[in-house]
This record gives sequence, structure tokens and C-alpha cells, in this order.
Amino acid sequence: MENGTVKHWRFQGNKKLTGASGFTVRGVLNLLRGNLNENDPRPTIPLGHGDPSAFPCFRTATVVEDAIVDSVRSANYNHYAPTVGILPARRAVAEYLNRDLPYKLSPDDVYLTLGCIQAIEVILTTLARPGANILLPRPGFPYYESLAAHIHLEVRHFDLLPEQGWEADLDSVEALADENTAAMLVINPGNPCGSVYTRQHLQKIAETATKLGIMVIADEVYGHLAFGSTPYVPMGVFGSIVPVVTLGSISKRWVVPGWRLGWLVTSDPNGILQKTGVGHSLSLSLLLNMWFDDYIVDSIKCFLDISTDPVTFIQGALPQILEKTKEDFYSKIIDILREAADICYDKMKEIPCITCPNKPEGGMFVMVKLNISLMEGINDDMDFAIQLAKEESVIVLPGIAVGMKNWLRVTFAIDPSTLKEGLERIKAFYQRHAKKQISS
Amino acid sequence: MENGTVKHWRFQGNKKLTGASGFTVRGVLNLLRGNLNENDPRPTIPLGHGDPSAFPCFRTATVVEDAIVDSVRSANYNHYAPTVGILPARRAVAEYLNRDLPYKLSPDDVYLTLGCIQAIEVILTTLARPGANILLPRPGFPYYESLAAHIHLEVRHFDLLPEQGWEADLDSVEALADENTAAMLVINPGNPCGSVYTRQHLQKIAETATKLGIMVIADEVYGHLAFGSTPYVPMGVFGSIVPVVTLGSISKRWVVPGWRLGWLVTSDPNGILQKTGVGHSLSLSLLLNMWFDDYIVDSIKCFLDISTDPVTFIQGALPQILEKTKEDFYSKIIDILREAADICYDKMKEIPCITCPNKPEGGMFVMVKLNISLMEGINDDMDFAIQLAKEESVIVLPGIAVGMKNWLRVTFAIDPSTLKEGLERIKAFYQRHAKKQISS
Ligand SMILES: Cc1ncc(COP(=O)(O)O)c(C=O)c1O
Ligand SMILES: Cc1ncc(COP(=O)(O)O)c(C=O)c1O
Repeated sequence: MENGTVKHWRFQGNKKLTGASGFTVRGVLNLLRGNLNENDPRPTIPLGHGDPSAFPCFRTATVVEDAIVDSVRSANYNHYAPTVGILPARRAVAEYLNRDLPYKLSPDDVYLTLGCIQAIEVILTTLARPGANILLPRPGFPYYESLAAHIHLEVRHFDLLPEQGWEADLDSVEALADENTAAMLVINPGNPCGSVYTRQHLQKIAETATKLGIMVIADEVYGHLAFGSTPYVPMGVFGSIVPVVTLGSISKRWVVPGWRLGWLVTSDPNGILQKTGVGHSLSLSLLLNMWFDDYIVDSIKCFLDISTDPVTFIQGALPQILEKTKEDFYSKIIDILREAADICYDKMKEIPCITCPNKPEGGMFVMVKLNISLMEGINDDMDFAIQLAKEESVIVLPGIAVGMKNWLRVTFAIDPSTLKEGLERIKAFYQRHAKKQISS
Repeated sequence: MENGTVKHWRFQGNKKLTGASGFTVRGVLNLLRGNLNENDPRPTIPLGHGDPSAFPCFRTATVVEDAIVDSVRSANYNHYAPTVGILPARRAVAEYLNRDLPYKLSPDDVYLTLGCIQAIEVILTTLARPGANILLPRPGFPYYESLAAHIHLEVRHFDLLPEQGWEADLDSVEALADENTAAMLVINPGNPCGSVYTRQHLQKIAETATKLGIMVIADEVYGHLAFGSTPYVPMGVFGSIVPVVTLGSISKRWVVPGWRLGWLVTSDPNGILQKTGVGHSLSLSLLLNMWFDDYIVDSIKCFLDISTDPVTFIQGALPQILEKTKEDFYSKIIDILREAADICYDKMKEIPCITCPNKPEGGMFVMVKLNISLMEGINDDMDFAIQLAKEESVIVLPGIAVGMKNWLRVTFAIDPSTLKEGLERIKAFYQRHAKKQISS
């Protein structure tokens, strides 16, 4: 025994985990929360992340809660789910998406996942062969970057253009792509920009991608949350131009992000994702008398085989959720978001250090530019966010966390009166920190 | 455009996914199911995996279903959960485990996970620094091997000894461990062996591990499912001898594997896992004005930051599930398992090609040895399982999938009358394939 000496334990944490993952929205928000002033009697106003579920006006539809209760009470869905999800739920997703497509998805095109987050994990891991790279938008949703770092998938960024309604800079997409580029990502409706892309822009994206020989990953977690003049068009509409992998979930439209149910869908009427693959056959699977097609869809299945599944009884509830939610619930949510986006856009105009290049038309966020030079004692966006949390108990996400220094990402997806109060506090914060010469 | 030519798409599947993960129980069971004879009018008997939830006698307790319904109806748990889980649920797990421990766990020792599967993923990923290895039991639960291959964590196997009640061969543990060994795994009650380890054996494991400077990962997903003469003792009891990471879930004791709620718990009263770490500080986190302790527990948190969480409303239900489930539900389940294990053990004796070295005392499985030489036209365990599926619509897991060729893993955790029928069919299968000279 080693009494009296310091014992040498052999295990260590994996430093790649604490090192490589970079910014996570969670990490930054936790940091900001750590800076809140506990003595402030006012409630904290969370403009940092997109989760309005706690506000009564955003409560999900009764029929959606009923679906869960019925599913649990049936006791038919306590079992482990199959790798790809249960058939009725896959069929329900296919039918839900088919309403907006010029061709028909089959249940076999649908893989159920633990929210859109796991759908992202599945497709990125599937594409992460050695040397491969992926094109991501900047600003974007930083989970893509964190995960890519973790699985050693190279990331290249193309810009979204604020002066063009945050459209993708397709020239830079062409310049960035090479033989090792597997895919480009489109988030529509946009996070963090609140943009909704026109049919024309989506078609251009499809044409660019097919020219480059890369697939499009369409993150449509905010699908249908469009409240401006541009209607929402799913990327899958262009699936016959380019293979599209559509990612979605019930988190946003049904305002139940804690339920962790999403999907990955191959929107690929030409079946290219079934036919394009790794080009290897497998001794181990041969040993098992099995033969895996070495294609993208098979990599997806293999990864799902070693992943855990969405809760079976929530899968069991999905057909009712997708089929029975009434139009008036959807439009109620859209109306609140529109009202909130308007409040946000108008109030921001009263804050000189903030410029909003585009009024949001969809999703839950807006990107605004900070003019740091108008303030005293504030170094940058991170500093702004930390001091704002300390002094005003308002949380906003510094732009650096989504790839744009000295911008802010602000969610308007909260109860409108709380939103007003939050923006008032930001205004007061600005006024307290405004440079003296401004008023002279 | 490339009309008339075969288009060259640049994306490929990740062949590591289809190649390296080896056997998964799911993969093998899917293969066997593919061999079922659709024209057999008899129902398929699933003796391959441990999920009795579909049998009415294994239905979970009403109070457990009520907990979910109350949680959903409250609408308090639709939000994204915090990285480590919600506090009341973490506290409930700590209190639940404290009933059997000589010291007190705090809620901070508890991380909620998507079933025990994600707890395994978290701890293995945390330990998978370059060069590290881990000691796993053979036979074992093949998810560990699949995941280790995926994350490049080296695996070394120590044997479980059938002639000693499937105890771990601790001499071989000592021989296998080196400077790069991070941990050894103990699954108790055992899968696939149905063993329940004595307090003495668990203490010896703790003493061996501490001597080697490695931690113990205690997979207690079958915790409390002990129905023989040996009482269940959690490994955490020896947490002051060696740091223990305890993994568990509600999947088995409450018979709800589809609910995906589990935990990873640092059973470590000396706080060694907080103090032992990667020995690096991080530029990125410094940039964020954050300081991560570079310790095991911090690696765990960082990995959870990029992982998805258990469903929030199931977390919300967990206190009620752990506190309100009545003793009579637990003992009903234990009684059925005991009856089923007895049936299994007795019926197996009637099948000459099968030997069962140890009567199961816990969990849901038994390992039995096949005597292939007594049969004609059957090459090995995999062949046995495939032909059995074809001819008798009975699924059993070939031992090769859990590391032991020419053994079988059989679950007895199904409705007893179905189990009897399944064993009768195995007997008939044997009789049809028995070598002629046996009877001469
Ligand atoms: C662009 C984007 N993709 C994916 C997600 C994850 O969604 P889910 O809750 O379905 O996992 C989010 C969540 O905020 C998001 O903003
Ligand atoms: C030994 C062992 N560990 C972990 C698991 C996974 O359990 P869960 O359903 O909680 O993810 C199983 C499931 O069969 C198991 O047998």
C-alpha cells in the first residue's frame, strides 16, 4: 500500500473534450449566468437562448400533451425502440413533410433522432471520414463547430451577407469547396439571423451544390416559423437537383424542446445517397453473413446502431402530434413571434449602440451589430454581455459565440411584455455607459 | 453540367462506422430476425435481448406512469434541461443510492443521462485520451467494445470464471493493467452471466483496482434485480477504497427501457475524481474568462455540454418514480424473474447440447455452453442461432457476440409460459439435429 505517499492514479480526463470543442452556447450562457447579480430583485430576462416553453403564452397545444398521456397509458411503448425509429412515427414524419414537397418521401427515408441535435451528430459523423471538410455558414449555430472539432471534421466558413438579407455568399462557397468537401449547411429559417430564404435563393444554393458535387444539409428545426413576407420553403423541394439531408424536430414549432424528438430525412428522390458511399466491404459483417451496402444511408444506420434512441412513447405520440395539432395553435405561435419581432426591431432603434441590419422574418433570433466605440469601459461583445448580465440581469449571447465579434444574438421568442422590459434594460445599460462626447 | 456522364459526388460515408464497431447486439439480432420464417404460424419467442416490457406481467407500476402524466400535464418540464440534469432529479438519484451506501452522495455527484447507454458513452469518452486502455470482462456487454472502437479506446479483456460463479479473474486483471490503464469494468448483477457478486468479491475488486491505480466503472443497470441467495451490494460501498463511477438507469428495475433515463454517479467520497485530471489549461476557456479544472469530472461536464439530454419531463417525473414505487412492485418483478430463471435452468437440463455452469441469481440473462459436437449440420453458435430462428422462430444471442464462441446468451426475462414454450422449441430443435450415434 502507498500510505504516506501521494497516490498516483492512472486515469486522466480526455483533454480533447475540455479543449477542442470551442464555444458552446451552453458554455457561454453558463458563464453569463455566473455573472448575474443575486441581489438584483428583478427577474432575469433570458434573451440568450431560444426556449420560450416556460412562458404561458407559448404553452404547447393540449392535443400534444394528450398524445403523450395516451401513449404512456397505453403501455405499448415502454420497450426499446428499433434503431431507426418505430414505423408509425417515421411514416407520420414522411407524410408531414410530403405536404410541402413535389415528390413523396417514404418512411424509409426517415430516421428518428433525439432532437435535431442528434440528427446533426448523425450526419456530421457519417461524413467525417479522414480529410473531409464541410462548409458552414457564419454566423451560425455553434453546435456544428463544437461537434466537428470533437469528431475531427474540418470546417470551412462561408459568410452570410447582412446587406442581402443574410443570404449565403455562394461565390465564397464555390471558392471554399474542394475534392474533400462533403456538404454545405443551410439553416432556414435562420439561426442566428431570423432570415427566411426565398425560393430563388434556395434554388441557387441547390444549383451551386450540385455543380460542386456536394450535398446540402438543411437544418429546418425552425421550419414553418416564418412570419414575414417571405413564405417558408423547405430545401427538400430541390431534392431532385441536389441530394438534401433534412434535419428537423418538434422542439420549436410545438415549443417542446425538452421532449427530444427530431428527425433526419434523406430528401433525395434520385436515391443518390443510397448509391454513393465508402467503397469498401467489411470483413466483420461478412463474418456475420451480412452485407452492408457501403453507402451514406448505411453509415447512418451503423452510427444509429451505437447511439441511443428517442423515447419510445414520445415516438408513439408523434403521429397524433403531427396530424392533430390544429392550425390555430400554429398561427397563435406565429402571431406572438411576429409581435415580438416587431417589438424587438422597433425598440432596438432607440438604442444608439445597436444596429439591426434586417428585420427578422422567421425563427427566434435576430443578429444586431454593436457599436462599441459609442460606449465607455466596454471592450467588446463578450464584455458587453457580461456587464449587462451583472448590471441589468439580462442575458444576451455575444456574437463571438456564433462567429461574429462585436455583434449580439438576441432572441425575441419570449413573452412580449418581458421582452419589452428586457430591451428597456438594455437601453438603460447603454445610456449609463454611453461616451460623454456623444451628448456634447 | 455533366449530362450524359456519371456524376461524381464528393461525399462519402464514414467507413469507420460501418467497419470498426464490430458486433452490436442490435446488429446480430437484426441478422437473426432476418432469418425468421414468415410462414411459421407460431409467434416468435425473443430470448435474445433483455426487454420484457411488452409482456403484461412486466408492466411498470401505475405510480410510475402517473409520474409521467403529472409531469407532462404540469407543463413545467417542456424546456431544455441543464447539461447535468435538473436538480430535483439529481437529488432523487443521490437519495435513492444513499439507501445502500455507508456515506452520502450529493446531487452534485449525479449526472443524468439518456439511459445507461449514454452513461457508458460519457465515461468511456472521458477516459479515451490517446494511448489509454480499459479492462473489460469477457463475456460482457458488447456495446462497450463497439463504442471503444468508435472512439479509439484500447480494450483489454479479463475473463469471468464460469467455475467460480463468473467472478472476475483478478490475476489476469493485474497482468493486463499497465501505466495506460484507466479503469476496469464490473457489471453486477451480471449481463450476460446472471451472476450476483458477493461483498467479498467486490471488495477484492476494489483492492485490486486501488493497487493498480485504476478506477472501477460499475455498471449497475440491473441493480437490485437479485433473486438468488447472494444479496445485491453496490460497488459504491467500496468508494473509499477506490473511486467508483456508478452507471444505472430506470430501464430494468422499472421495466421501462424505452424511457431512456439513466445516471452516471461519482461514488467517490475521497473526491479523487475531482482532483485527478488532464493536467492542461485551456486557451479557449481562458479567452472566455473561464477556468475549467482539468479533472475527470470536468471532462464529463464538457462532454455532456455537446451531448443531448434525457427528456426534461421524464427527469421531472424521476423523484416520484424513485420515491413512490412500492416494495410490492419490486418484489413482484423479482418473483417473476426467479420463477423464470428456475424454469430456464431446469428445462436446459433436458437439452443435452446445452450446459449451464451456474444457475442465474440476478439480472435477465444466463450464459450456457453449447456442445456442437452432439449435433449434425451445425457449425457453431452463430449457425445454431440462425437455424434456430429459421426453424423454430426462437431468437437467442450467439455467444460470439458477447465474446464467447460456442456459448449462447439466453434471456429468461419474459413471461414464464412463453419462456417454457421457447425452451421446448430449443429442445425439439436439438432433437432434430442430434447426431445419430448418440442414441446407439
Ligand atoms: C439551428 C439549430 N439547429 C438545431 C437545434 C437543436 O434543436 P433540438 O432541440 O431539436 O435538438 C437548434 C436549437 O436551438 C438550432 O437553433
Ligand atoms: C450491462 C448493460 N449496460 C447497459 C445497458 C443499457 O441500459 P439502458 O437501457 O439504461 O441504456 C444494458 C442494456 O441491456 C446492459 O445490459
